Amino acid sequence: MLPFFFWVGVMKAAHRYILTLTCPDRVGIVAQVSELIASVKGWVTEANYHSDQETKQFFMRNEIRGDSISDQVDAFKTRFSDIAAEFNMQWALHDTAEKQRVVLFASKASHCLNDLLHRWHNGELDCMISAVISNHESLRRMVDWYDIPFECIPILPEAKATGFDQVAQALTRLQPDAVVLARYMQVLPTSICETFSGRMINIHHSFLPSFMGANPYQRAFERGVKLIGATSHYVTEDLDEGPIIEQDVSRVSHRHETKDLIRLGKDIERVVLARAVRQHLEHRVFISGNKTVIFD
Amino acid sequence: MLPFFFWVGVMKAAHRYILTLTCPDRVGIVAQVSELIASVKGWVTEANYHSDQETKQFFMRNEIRGDSISDQVDAFKTRFSDIAAEFNMQWALHDTAEKQRVVLFASKASHCLNDLLHRWHNGELDCMISAVISNHESLRRMVDWYDIPFECIPILPEAKATGFDQVAQALTRLQPDAVVLARYMQVLPTSICETFSGRMINIHHSFLPSFMGANPYQRAFERGVKLIGATSHYVTEDLDEGPIIEQDVSRVSHRHETKDLIRLGKDIERVVLARAVRQHLEHRVFISGNKTVIFD
Amino acid sequence: MLPFFFWVGVMKAAHRYILTLTCPDRVGIVAQVSELIASVKGWVTEANYHSDQETKQFFMRNEIRGDSISDQVDAFKTRFSDIAAEFNMQWALHDTAEKQRVVLFASKASHCLNDLLHRWHNGELDCMISAVISNHESLRRMVDWYDIPFECIPILPEAKATGFDQVAQALTRLQPDAVVLARYMQVLPTSICETFSGRMINIHHSFLPSFMGANPYQRAFERGVKLIGATSHYVTEDLDEGPIIEQDVSRVSHRHETKDLIRLGKDIERVVLARAVRQHLEHRVFISGNKTVIFD
Amino acid sequence: MLPFFFWVGVMKAAHRYILTLTCPDRVGIVAQVSELIASVKGWVTEANYHSDQETKQFFMRNEIRGDSISDQVDAFKTRFSDIAAEFNMQWALHDTAEKQRVVLFASKASHCLNDLLHRWHNGELDCMISAVISNHESLRRMVDWYDIPFECIPILPEAKATGFDQVAQALTRLQPDAVVLARYMQVLPTSICETFSGRMINIHHSFLPSFMGANPYQRAFERGVKLIGATSHYVTEDLDEGPIIEQDVSRVSHRHETKDLIRLGKDIERVVLARAVRQHLEHRVFISGNKTVIFD
Repeated sequence: MLPFFFWVGVMKAAHRYILTLTCPDRVGIVAQVSELIASVKGWVTEANYHSDQETKQFFMRNEIRGDSISDQVDAFKTRFSDIAAEFNMQWALHDTAEKQRVVLFASKASHCLNDLLHRWHNGELDCMISAVISNHESLRRMVDWYDIPFECIPILPEAKATGFDQVAQALTRLQPDAVVLARYMQVLPTSICETFSGRMINIHHSFLPSFMGANPYQRAFERGVKLIGATSHYVTEDLDEGPIIEQDVSRVSHRHETKDLIRLGKDIERVVLARAVRQHLEHRVFISGNKTVIFD
Repeated sequence: MLPFFFWVGVMKAAHRYILTLTCPDRVGIVAQVSELIASVKGWVTEANYHSDQETKQFFMRNEIRGDSISDQVDAFKTRFSDIAAEFNMQWALHDTAEKQRVVLFASKASHCLNDLLHRWHNGELDCMISAVISNHESLRRMVDWYDIPFECIPILPEAKATGFDQVAQALTRLQPDAVVLARYMQVLPTSICETFSGRMINIHHSFLPSFMGANPYQRAFERGVKLIGATSHYVTEDLDEGPIIEQDVSRVSHRHETKDLIRLGKDIERVVLARAVRQHLEHRVFISGNKTVIFD
Repeated sequence: MLPFFFWVGVMKAAHRYILTLTCPDRVGIVAQVSELIASVKGWVTEANYHSDQETKQFFMRNEIRGDSISDQVDAFKTRFSDIAAEFNMQWALHDTAEKQRVVLFASKASHCLNDLLHRWHNGELDCMISAVISNHESLRRMVDWYDIPFECIPILPEAKATGFDQVAQALTRLQPDAVVLARYMQVLPTSICETFSGRMINIHHSFLPSFMGANPYQRAFERGVKLIGATSHYVTEDLDEGPIIEQDVSRVSHRHETKDLIRLGKDIERVVLARAVRQHLEHRVFISGNKTVIFD
Repeated sequence: MLPFFFWVGVMKAAHRYILTLTCPDRVGIVAQVSELIASVKGWVTEANYHSDQETKQFFMRNEIRGDSISDQVDAFKTRFSDIAAEFNMQWALHDTAEKQRVVLFASKASHCLNDLLHRWHNGELDCMISAVISNHESLRRMVDWYDIPFECIPILPEAKATGFDQVAQALTRLQPDAVVLARYMQVLPTSICETFSGRMINIHHSFLPSFMGANPYQRAFERGVKLIGATSHYVTEDLDEGPIIEQDVSRVSHRHETKDLIRLGKDIERVVLARAVRQHLEHRVFISGNKTVIFD
């Protein structure tokens, strides 16, 4: 158990319900949704919507204070189902009291894992971390400190399938709501990618679509770019081609060798992945084809 | 007249109505407003709202396609007045077909004026520029090129009041909707500031609240800051203390002398002022006490 | 002629000599070069050097106050030739009193051209602009204002070779030291690229190597990137693959359509091209293989 | 002891000597210094110098490969002393094999401390961390994990002098080369500041000189700035007024409350402090009056 004093300074977010929905765009959606929320005296603390001009798809997110509707949640859901049917919506009502389960994957590089664990520990990431899975033992002691289960599942070149079977079994057992690849460095099998479609986040150490695939810093060095970047995206079966959630860059110059790009890149990778994970956990990210709509 | 080929590439924005409102926050505002818009078949292309947790004030902006409600605008206004009264709203329905009149002020420095005029000319700033007023003749030829009236009103140290009286008369005659101080370098009298409260935008060449007042680049150099900045803000009677609309910064180092900061700063001033003017003209900026709410 | 008052505020840079050199790296280069400069009482106001770890090539740039060596320039050159031979250097001694001749190319888009001309006019770009060449008439009136010759050389799809012959002739006649493609939108023939190798700067409207070729903003929109960029580079015969001089980016979101990316991108293109041109004119850019060493 | 596998990936920097010097500017410094280095066959891998136009002070930094001069270091020092005397230099020859001792100070906030410790552990900060001193017990367990001594020295409001006496004693005992205040939140006595003048680095959670002193995020929120920042600087007896080493900013909007600024600010504080500490440890920072010259 973590001692009491570690929790000093953790800001307890108030209980909220987060209503997310998407449907074909047409006149009247906001009016009907807002009216229903108002009719149960729902106190909306943040609301966003977006109408995609290209796909004619509509996206909406409402944060509602828990105490304003907590005794009417079931009634609200029932009535909302009618609207959802009328407008052909995909929707969900997320209760922030129900912590999402997250599984982190890492390899040997510790910077992203350390960053996510520290943020989680500080209360910046509102979730439960069910386990850290790694193909190496290197980071076990770091994870132990946080009292989070560490599972080492080697992915040997000669027995990849066996390794990934074990990974699949672990995920079946852990039943995570979200999976985060914090510099895992392994390409997961399509079946796993599909199971966690829209719920598995990767960090790629380049400014996509530049330098997809292996050794992006080396290739950035060789091309002589003046900015390097990092990209967090949902994992799809096409490597490094999934919907982009967040990107950022850092300035470099001729004085930086590949090892400097690697070092400077770590700082971008850290924040880009952390922002993506936080936005995902707060149900701020909607997938729209191969792109994202993000209400930040 | 400008020859035809200058207009090549200007993207004509579709006709829209922009509904802006602010009122004390309470349950049901969005529902009622959205329902009324929907009831006249208003096609909302962009909508934003914000509930200020501190002041309990609510802000909303809706863009509505002109062709969806143009035959019902008067009816809409009449019905909206009832809602506005109920919720104690300040509101306006802006018609993008009615070009706003803007007066630009400049002194001798040309970079902001050239930038604004070029953007206007390219169709990036949707307004009519009624006149450029300057206390010097320097920029007359630049303004002439755009076929915009240039008025030189000297502000002589020994006759400032006379000069500002002429400025006030010019503004009374021109009746601008907005005034932009594009490095005017003169402190306008309180009476003019009050008349254009919330409609007069200044660019200050520092990252406010650092280096308020005179010679900010010189003082930034002396302090040894590693970033310099620029700030656009609404003019109030307290110099450089009005609500901030936009800010940005640029990296500098020990190798930069004051003259380099001045040069590098110009690039920030240009974009920061242009962004602020554009957001103001699109009715995206709401003043909330001494701060701004910006739906960008 | 431009009236006197336009020149107010133009800071006259002091007369300097700029010594640039590159050679295989070995011990003693700095010592010998510095000693020679010191021996003629050269007052170095800025000096940089870089030793490339990969190619083992050495690069050096010295700015020397003109008044400190102006009576010994010929002697200095003679003595420097000996060192240059010893170290197998490529070198040049640039006299800032000899203005470089620059030819600008543009098409219909005015933002980069207006920006470069305004900076030149303000004294930010220390050069002589010999001509603006365009394949359209659109920007003639803008260029006329600056009293710079404007040459319209149409590049018709059915007669490209004829057009490019005229371009080549114009360049032969104008003998520019540098050529700047300010959104020219035409792929110049290899022969012209070769003639101006290392002296012809292009602006590409993407963050290279992403989105090489046509319609980068449209493709950035389709990929759903969260940052768009611009890249200035030396032109080589491989389109958009030459040595990169400068890059920058701007944040975008799902709310931005392609036309917004185009608009936001203009602000990046402007500054990225202007920085590259300034650095080139100040002899700060060294080409090293397909990369650049920039002493900024 | 840390297990072996934690050191995987730590890039061992080659042994180098770092020569730093500053003196009044005059002709011939570079020549003489470079000649002396060359005469002992010193292989310079990086060199920078700067001549301050305002103070007429000269600054120089050379990195020399250890293996190129390691058998002549004493001779080099002796001969260099003569040059130093002639030019009235302050100088030092740092041996990267001699690890600098660093003491970190923290309070309850863990983000900067965790970041520095993780970077140190990863090999990004080339030093020995002698101890972490805190006025609270909160972070003991974090520090324990790194096998670094943790000293809790309470600073009680009613007995501050006693606390600071203990701090002074600890520093006398530890004899650090550098002290880093990683959000220590206490104002150290002048005597300690003086002892560690130019060797004690603080992180202030604002973009100085804005919001000096207490509660900068709250005041940034109240002013309605559109960017928040952080500043690392050398500690002097004037609070938040010492020479600035590094600054950075992050964009915020009306949607961010003070608690959001605090959260977003942490990411800037982390990197700004880490960059400053790294630059200091690499002897890249020179103090020039109340400003810094940084060869990065």
